[in-house]
Amino acid sequence: MESENPNVKKFQKEMMSGIAALVLLSVLDQSDTPLYGYQITRNLEKENQKIQLMKLGALYPVLRSLEKSGLLSSQVEPSFSGPPRRYYAITAEGHAMLQEWQAIWQQTSLFVNSILEGK
Amino acid sequence: MESENPNVKKFQKEMMSGIAALVLLSVLDQSDTPLYGYQITRNLEKENQKIQLMKLGALYPVLRSLEKSGLLSSQVEPSFSGPPRRYYAITAEGHAMLQEWQAIWQQTSLFVNSILEGK
Repeated sequence: MESENPNVKKFQKEMMSGIAALVLLSVLDQSDTPLYGYQITRNLEKENQKIQLMKLGALYPVLRSLEKSGLLSSQVEPSFSGPPRRYYAITAEGHAMLQEWQAIWQQTSLFVNSILEGK
Repeated sequence: MESENPNVKKFQKEMMSGIAALVLLSVLDQSDTPLYGYQITRNLEKENQKIQLMKLGALYPVLRSLEKSGLLSSQVEPSFSGPPRRYYAITAEGHAMLQEWQAIWQQTSLFVNSILEGK
């Protein structure tokens, strides 16, 4: 779902930039092995066939920022089919942070829904 | 819920900046009369007694930005008990935009929940 309206775009961009870190940490937390960018996007698309909420290009800055914060670690591995790939894995700190972020997400989404419903 | 951890703070701030516009438009859409800043915060606190997700100071830049985009209009009225107050009301354009934003919110929160549940 892509809107042409600049107000909607701004809203969508801001909301997604906050949520992206949560979503990426969660995908890596659920994976048994480290994943590289394209694999992560594929995992996201499985959940989300019609809406491409996260483009691959938007993914990398978030991954780098999460690694800089110590929540992810990464390692470059050679590939048979192209350039080397950077594989990301969640750290113990990232796992602990994810629990906290999930709690914030639950509270926030309940809050937003209660406002939208105008109870 | 205020965290001391800078990673959590960053996440919370980004997520809320995107959601703030949605929440404010929705509160004004549900009000029969224009509201000033403090009344809006009071309405938010009713829903949300323990968590103060939106501080009054964080509210004003969002209100101004929504007005600049034509989604809100405002008018200054004198007050008996203090300085004049700026009352905000939603515009027809804001009402239409809110419908679109609500749909995006529903899709996004479903998406995030499906990722967190790891279905």
